[in-house]
This record gives sequence, C-alpha cells and structure tokens, in this order.
Amino acid sequence: MPSYSAPLKDYQFLLHRVFKVEELSQTSLFEHATPDVFDAVLTEAARFCENVLAPINRSGDEQGCQFENGRVTTPDGFREAYALFRDGGWAGLTAAPEHGGQGLPHCLQILVDEMTTSANFGFAMYRGLNEAAYRLLVRYGSDHLKDTYLEAFATGALLPTMNLTEPHCGSDLGLLRTRAEPDDQGTYRISGNKIFITGGEHDLTDNIPHFVLARLPDAPAGSRGISLFLVPKLYTDEESGLEVRNALSCGAIEHKMGLKASATCVMNYDGAKGWLVGAPHSGLQAMFTLMNAARLGVGVQGVSAAESSHQIASAYAAERKQGKAPGTTGVGPDPINQHPDVRRMLLTQKAFAEGGRAFALRMAFSIDKAHAADHAAEREKHEDLVQVMTPIVKAFLSDAGNEAANLGVQILGGHGYIREWGAEQWVRDIRIATIYEGTNGIQALDLTGRKLTLKDGAALGQYLSLLKSLLEDANNSFSPAADGLTALEDLSDLTARLKSATAAQVSEVASEYLAFFGLVSLAAEWALIAKTALVHQKEDPQFYADKLETAHFYMKRLLPRYLALDASIKAVL
Amino acid sequence: MPSYSAPLKDYQFLLHRVFKVEELSQTSLFEHATPDVFDAVLTEAARFCENVLAPINRSGDEQGCQFENGRVTTPDGFREAYALFRDGGWAGLTAAPEHGGQGLPHCLQILVDEMTTSANFGFAMYRGLNEAAYRLLVRYGSDHLKDTYLEAFATGALLPTMNLTEPHCGSDLGLLRTRAEPDDQGTYRISGNKIFITGGEHDLTDNIPHFVLARLPDAPAGSRGISLFLVPKLYTDEESGLEVRNALSCGAIEHKMGLKASATCVMNYDGAKGWLVGAPHSGLQAMFTLMNAARLGVGVQGVSAAESSHQIASAYAAERKQGKAPGTTGVGPDPINQHPDVRRMLLTQKAFAEGGRAFALRMAFSIDKAHAADHAAEREKHEDLVQVMTPIVKAFLSDAGNEAANLGVQILGGHGYIREWGAEQWVRDIRIATIYEGTNGIQALDLTGRKLTLKDGAALGQYLSLLKSLLEDANNSFSPAADGLTALEDLSDLTARLKSATAAQVSEVASEYLAFFGLVSLAAEWALIAKTALVHQKEDPQFYADKLETAHFYMKRLLPRYLALDASIKAVL
Repeated sequence: MPSYSAPLKDYQFLLHRVFKVEELSQTSLFEHATPDVFDAVLTEAARFCENVLAPINRSGDEQGCQFENGRVTTPDGFREAYALFRDGGWAGLTAAPEHGGQGLPHCLQILVDEMTTSANFGFAMYRGLNEAAYRLLVRYGSDHLKDTYLEAFATGALLPTMNLTEPHCGSDLGLLRTRAEPDDQGTYRISGNKIFITGGEHDLTDNIPHFVLARLPDAPAGSRGISLFLVPKLYTDEESGLEVRNALSCGAIEHKMGLKASATCVMNYDGAKGWLVGAPHSGLQAMFTLMNAARLGVGVQGVSAAESSHQIASAYAAERKQGKAPGTTGVGPDPINQHPDVRRMLLTQKAFAEGGRAFALRMAFSIDKAHAADHAAEREKHEDLVQVMTPIVKAFLSDAGNEAANLGVQILGGHGYIREWGAEQWVRDIRIATIYEGTNGIQALDLTGRKLTLKDGAALGQYLSLLKSLLEDANNSFSPAADGLTALEDLSDLTARLKSATAAQVSEVASEYLAFFGLVSLAAEWALIAKTALVHQKEDPQFYADKLETAHFYMKRLLPRYLALDASIKAVL
Repeated sequence: MPSYSAPLKDYQFLLHRVFKVEELSQTSLFEHATPDVFDAVLTEAARFCENVLAPINRSGDEQGCQFENGRVTTPDGFREAYALFRDGGWAGLTAAPEHGGQGLPHCLQILVDEMTTSANFGFAMYRGLNEAAYRLLVRYGSDHLKDTYLEAFATGALLPTMNLTEPHCGSDLGLLRTRAEPDDQGTYRISGNKIFITGGEHDLTDNIPHFVLARLPDAPAGSRGISLFLVPKLYTDEESGLEVRNALSCGAIEHKMGLKASATCVMNYDGAKGWLVGAPHSGLQAMFTLMNAARLGVGVQGVSAAESSHQIASAYAAERKQGKAPGTTGVGPDPINQHPDVRRMLLTQKAFAEGGRAFALRMAFSIDKAHAADHAAEREKHEDLVQVMTPIVKAFLSDAGNEAANLGVQILGGHGYIREWGAEQWVRDIRIATIYEGTNGIQALDLTGRKLTLKDGAALGQYLSLLKSLLEDANNSFSPAADGLTALEDLSDLTARLKSATAAQVSEVASEYLAFFGLVSLAAEWALIAKTALVHQKEDPQFYADKLETAHFYMKRLLPRYLALDASIKAVL
C-alpha cells in the first residue's frame, strides 16, 4: 500500500540553491561532477528506488530472511534487485573510475543512500559498506588486497561486512577475544565468534569478504591490541589456483524487531584464513574508516525514516476525513491534515526530514571539500568539521528519525498500528539506528570526550563559529534566526562549563548536550534554508512558502526543546 | 528469558504510607477492604501473574492469534490461563458480591490490572472491559440485560467487547453508519461493519457479548444520533429456549505491530439481534462509562510498560559489563548500570513507572472516594477530579510508557533489538496505547475543551489547587518541590491564557499543554513520595534512599521538560 516518491525537488534546492555544489566541479578532483551529472544520477537513482526497491519493501519485511544449514535466503525479489543495483553501477558512486567507480562526490552519494534506504531499508543494509570498505583498502590495504578487492567493492561484485561485536563485547571493544595466529604463508588463522554481523551470509553474491577485528598472539591487552583482518568466505588457493571455502560459517540469524529483510548473522571463525589490513595492533584506527562512514550513513537513515514516514502520513492525512477543523466552514468532516494537532505532527516530521537532510549534506559536502582540497590547512579545516559533526549527525538524526517514525504511526491512528500501511515498519526498522555503529550514548561520550578537546577545543570552536555565522547571516531577513543565536549562546556557555566538569558529570549530561548541539545545528540549517527561500521565493511560491512555514515551525516549536536540556544539564554541572 | 516480579513493596508503600488507603475501610461501602485483604489479594495476584501469565507472554507474541473460517485461536496456554483467571475470581474485583464480584475498591483493581498487563499485555486485553461493562449495565441496563449478564461479567464467564470504530470513522464517531432496525420483539437488528474490535472473536469463552454503537432509523445526524446495543454472539431464543447463533461474524483479524496475542477483529453485523442499552440516541454517554474506565486502564498500561521494561533493563544492566565507569577503581569493566548515561535512562524509566503508578492510583482512589461518599458535594468533588485527570492519565502515562519501553531497548543495546530479550516486545505492544481509547491528541482536545471549562473552570481549578498543596506540603522537607511550584505557576498562567485563545490556537498547543500538565502532576506525586520517604526512611533505608534519589532525578532532570513546552506554547498563544 505505501509507495515512495524521491524528494528530487528538495535535492535540487539543497544542492544548487543552498549549498551551491557547483563549486565542487571547479576542483580538479570533481571537475566532471557538473550539475547535469548530479541531476542525471539523482533522477536515475530515484527511478530505481521507486520502481525496483520500494515494491519489495513490505513483502521483504513480511517474509524476512530464511536460515537453513548455514545458508541465508533473502526475501523474494532481493537477488534480482541486487543484480540491477550492481549492474546499474550504484555500488561505487564515489570510488575511483580506474576501479570501476564513478568518482562522484559524497554529497551525491548520501542522497542516493537516502533514497535507497527510504525505498527499502532492509535491502539498503547489504550494500551499506562498499564505499567505506573501498576507501579503507585504498588507505590501509596491501597491494594484494587492493588487487583482489578494490574493483569488486567499487562495482558491487562483492559486499563486504564489518565484524566487531562479540557476545560479551559491544561498546567496549577492548574486551574482544577473537584470535589471529600467523601461519607460514604470511596470512593468519582467525578464530572466534562474532555477532550482529549485517549481511554475514546471504545469497546476493557468491563470495563475502569480512573485515574482522582480532588479537594477535603478542597483542597488548585492551583496545590497543586489536588488529584488522580481511577474511573472505571464499579465496583462491595460491598453489592450486582453485577457489577454496574458508573455515568460517554463519551459525544463525537473529530474530529482530525490524529490518527483517536484512540478515543479521552470528559468525563463527574456526581458524579461517585472514589477511592483515594495516599495521598490527592498529585495527581500531583502520576500522574507524568504516565506522565513521557508517555513522554518517546512520544519520542519513534517520533522514530516510523521517522522509518516508512523512510521505506515508501526509498521504493518509490528506485523504482521511474526521471532524471539523477549527475555522473551516464546509459541510462534513475535514481532512485530518487541517487539524492543528495533526499538522503539528506532520510539520515535526518535515522539519526533521528536510533540516536533517541539509545537516547530513553539510557533513558530506565537508568530506568532499576535504578530499578536493589543494592545501593541507584547508583539508584539515574540513576534516575537523567532519570529526565534530559525526557523533551529532549519527545520534541526533537517528533520534529524530525515530521520533518522526513514531509520529507517522500516531498520525495514522489505529491504521498506523496495522502492518499493511507501512508506518509501523518504519518504527521497527529505524529503532536500531540509535544503537548500532556506536550507541547514541557512545556518540555523546565521543562528542564530550574526544571531540570537545580535539585540537584543544579549536575543532569544536570552528563548528560553533560556523553555526553562528549561518544564524547571523540569516537573521537579517529571517528574524526567527535570533532564537537560534540565543540558543547558541547557551550552548557555548555549556561547552565552557563542560571543560571544567568532572568525568562523572560530563557523562551524566553527555546525551543531553549532544541533543542540544543537534537542535542548534538544525536551527542553523533551517535559518540558511529560510534565508535562501526568501531570496528565491518568486521562482516557486508554494515550494518556498512551505520551506518558510517549516522553518518558522522549527524555530518556534521545536528549537525550544533546548531550554529543557539546558536546565537539566545545569542541574548537574 | 525475561521474567516479571510484581513490585509489591512499592504497592504497600503507596497504599499504606502515601495514600493511606485505610481510610476507605472506614466507609460503609468498603468496610471489608482492610489492609490485610489488600495484601492478600495483591500477593495472590502477583503469584498468578508471575507464574501463570508471564511464562506465556513471549510465546504468545511469537505465535500470535490464528484466524480460520471465522474462528480465532488464541496462543498456546491462553485458554488454560484464562480458566485459572476466571476461577480465581480476578474478573470482578470491584463488582458487587451479590453478582459474584468482590466489592473491592478501584485502587486495588488498577494494581491488579498493572500486574496482569506487565506479565502479559496480550492476555490482559481480553479481560480489560469486564469491570467497566459491569458498571455500564448496572447504570444503564434493563432488568433483562442485568439478569442475563451482570453475573457473567463479574465472574468472567463472559468477556464483553466495545464496538465503536468503523472503516471510515475513528476519532469522529458522528460519522458512524451501523444501523439498528427495531424488530417486533422489542429488540433490534444491527447491520454494519466494525473494525479494531479487541477480542471480537476468540476461544476463551463460548459466548461473546458485544457493545455496539449504531443508529436508529429516526436518529439525528452526527454524534447525537447514536445508540448503544448489546449484541451477543449467542443468545437464548425465547420461544424455543434454545441457544441461537446471532447474525454476526468475525471477518478477519488484523496483522499488527504488537499485541499479537490479542485478537483485533473486523466484525460484521448482518441483521444481528441486539438489545438497546440506555435511552435511544444516548449511546455515546453510556459508552463513555466504558471509555473513561478504559482511559484510566490505558494510563495503567503505560505504568506496566515502564515497570516491565525497567525490570528487563535493570536486570541486564546489572549483569552486562562494558568499559570503566567514571570514578570506579576496580580491575576490568564495570556493570553498565554504573555508567552515568545508562543510569540516567534507568532512572527515567523508574521515575515514570513509580511516579506514574502514584498518579494513576490517585485517580483510582478518587473514583473509590466518589463511590463511597456519603454526601453529594463530596462525591461531586471527587468525580470532578476524575474528569480532569482522565485525559492526562491516559495520554501522559501512555507517552511515558512508550518512552520507557524505548529506553529499555536502548539500555540493552543490540540485544534490545533482538526478540528473545523481551525489551522490543514492549515497544511494539505499548505503541498502541497512545492511539486507542481516543488518541492522545483527542485527549488533549478533551482537556483543553470540555475539561478546561467544566463548571466554569472550577473542576480544573480544584486539581491545580490539589497539586499546589501537595507541592507546598512537601516543600518544607524536600526542597526540589520548589521547582514543581515554579512549574505550576507557569501552568496556571498558561491555563488562563488558553481561556482567551482561539479554537485554532488551543488545538495547536493542546498536546503540549497536556504534557505540561502531566509533568507537573508527576512532580506533585514525586514530592509527596519524597516527603513520605523522609518521614519513614529509617524503617528501610535502602528502599527510601532509592525513592529520594528518583524523586530528585525527576525534579531536576525530567521536570525541566516543561520549559520547552512552555516556550513552544507561548510561541502560539
């Protein structure tokens, strides 16, 4: 029953009007990423997501993955859809052309990610790591690994996985026990159990390469003794030249709340042959290439949830008629989207979807600018921004996605609780986003720990200054931006207080501090959006009037949440 | 894996120390409801819920209800559990002894309701209406209906249902189309389709009596033309004396997000024989007897969700060891309940569970005092309180239950997303609570509409005065109560503003106003709890220290949420 329509118009607005992505095509790295290339890619991706992925989303949820004798069968239509995805070149948008990728910027990638997830979150999970795994190998891989895997990742011939968690070891990776013993061939024998491995086994590709964290025999205890290995399901034996099945297996798949079309696997490594990636005992650093990309990806999933839930809810609310709305004069009941309380919920979803999209896009754009930078200082500036924004994007947008999805159910009322409408699937699917790739509590500790003190606070200070300039720039034409400036002052004050707080105090308020940061971050994006809308409003009055209404709503009705956070934090600090 | 342990100690504390329920046994109506009777009933109910209902909760969710050829099969063990429930006399705690009930007060009933729901929400749904349906018939039923059904409701021989919603008609009951034609036997022929009917068909009892809203041929349009009928699945034909199958059937059961063990039915009435309940065209008024009781029940479900999710999460957090908590000195990782961010989530659940329980108990206690009152003025005072509290208890506690259940998943991390731990089932099960029995948006409109102006505002004023006196009384010994008084002043100010606002403005802020009211209501309960704990703390230092810690946490870390609501509301008013 639910259908998905890619928000291409909003993409155009953000890319060309708000972020002026054209400046990227003036760099040598992205000179081919011209506006018409952007538009062509987005239009094509939208078509694929709407027509191929969305139709198998509900059925994928109902059917789920099947596990039998170590083999995983994905839901009907997933194999065919994956073949189209791969053949369409969607796996390697940002990978280099010499490896079969398209060399396009990240800000384009995350919009394609958003559409893919919006259309079919379960499907999107399988291909979630290709780009990041590609970059991981570019940076840390041996020539052998590069030769073997780069092209396969860029073209989607293979779907890499990330193996961190063990039964006793989740947030605290220092506890991990999986062992790696060197063999006499320059490779290693990996033994241990990993859990919660997305796509650890499936039928979309024949081979599956696993990135596995493990300890070498001489490893120091804790997180400084962890190394990274690439452990493929199948590999070519050097002597015989034959393809060999590695000593690893999927022991089970989890029965989950949602994302049922995505196989979450228990993986057993029984002396499986693995190749070291990067230096010994430096596995966490390398794995963070994957992790940080995944964190931006999770933020984007929050945007997908808000967007898709909003599409379902606004379609329903336009059709469903109940009661007279205040101020209406017609005969009979009004569509519920005219009732102010329903409108409040719809606008909340919209504010998170569109503001969150701008926020994630800013981070992706910074990644691109770092990649394309000609000078080290400029690269560093953008990298610092990305560092600071990563935990906020991940946690704030995944929380926002959860809230929006729950509002979607609420707007549909009893019909929201029924599976066929698709609203409740979003609540179940997006629920994991505040947990995986580092729980939102861990993100908050990353922000208040590592990121707060990065470069003696200069990195975070740079982001605060950026927020200030965005709000000040908008304030001339869009007066609600002043509310954002007031909030920003409080946030800066709290930031100073945090620096002299005890570790216990900091961790007690970390989640609220991150939420505060997220609220102000979105305020800056909405201020910029409003300012831009005011400049262009005559070109498309209805589109820009909607933007201004949502911007006002965000500033006046959602941003005030910081007052609660501020008071609660100050009760501790 | 999850198990449930009834919070009997908290019940004792609230009943005997906080609310001094003993005063009820000094009334003639409840003279037999002595403390030892309370204790015996609660202990026995706890045993039943822990040992009979809890063990079939997860399996009930996995198996769900089956529908075939118009028949519904409940999950394994439900029939046997229901027989024990019925034979234990649990269906009619508050019904009169002459009908096989136990004549006990409501404040005891809702604690049994809480335990039943905590142990097995799906099961609890089937027996959710017996007490209220009993009272409905006592007040509005003909002698024939009383003779036929009162005892059956009080003893649990039959499980009545409530039929309001139709495919096109949810919040706006004025739209309903089901017809009732008088026949020549003094009864009516009911024709129409009803949806979302809890327990519309099942295998726990042979007969099922349905309370159905329908329109008589001469009915005025809208909600003033609705009558109430009792339409049983089976009835005794007067001429033949034989039991006859009525012309009604279950057409399907819904596939839902949660509450899978509870059959949610599509009901088709095809000229089914029905008996008028109350006066023609006055059906809504009579149905509200059921509805208001159900709304208190939904608030209690929120408490159940918070309590059970907290039990699952606190057991997990005490066992699960990850990372060093700030300030700890031991070797190796600490249990995550020592990490301040996890502690914050656990305390939030606890504050909602225990504070919400006190809030619901106050409402139930007021119902009892109204029933037991010797004078009309006293009865009216308590009835007014109940009227004002009903939408707040329903909406605020169901929201709180949803938040607590989601925190439960968050605390368990990846394990929270896996079905076997039971945390995610609470998120799915409790999600309906903000929707059914009038969405929380409808509750907010009830509060800002009917309840705000009830007796020219005197009813709401009485409740505000009560909150004030509770907070002032506590303020001498528990200084954080002062925060509650500050919040209460803002709330009173907003209440005054609301009275001169436009209908559109009121409905725009109604949900936030209700949430504000709920926050202050819980603040008053926590102030009273803290004050009581301070008096008794030497009797059980750990128990009362926990109470004081949670009370502080609520006042300093959760109550400040009103600041956000206040600012957001004032942006509109």
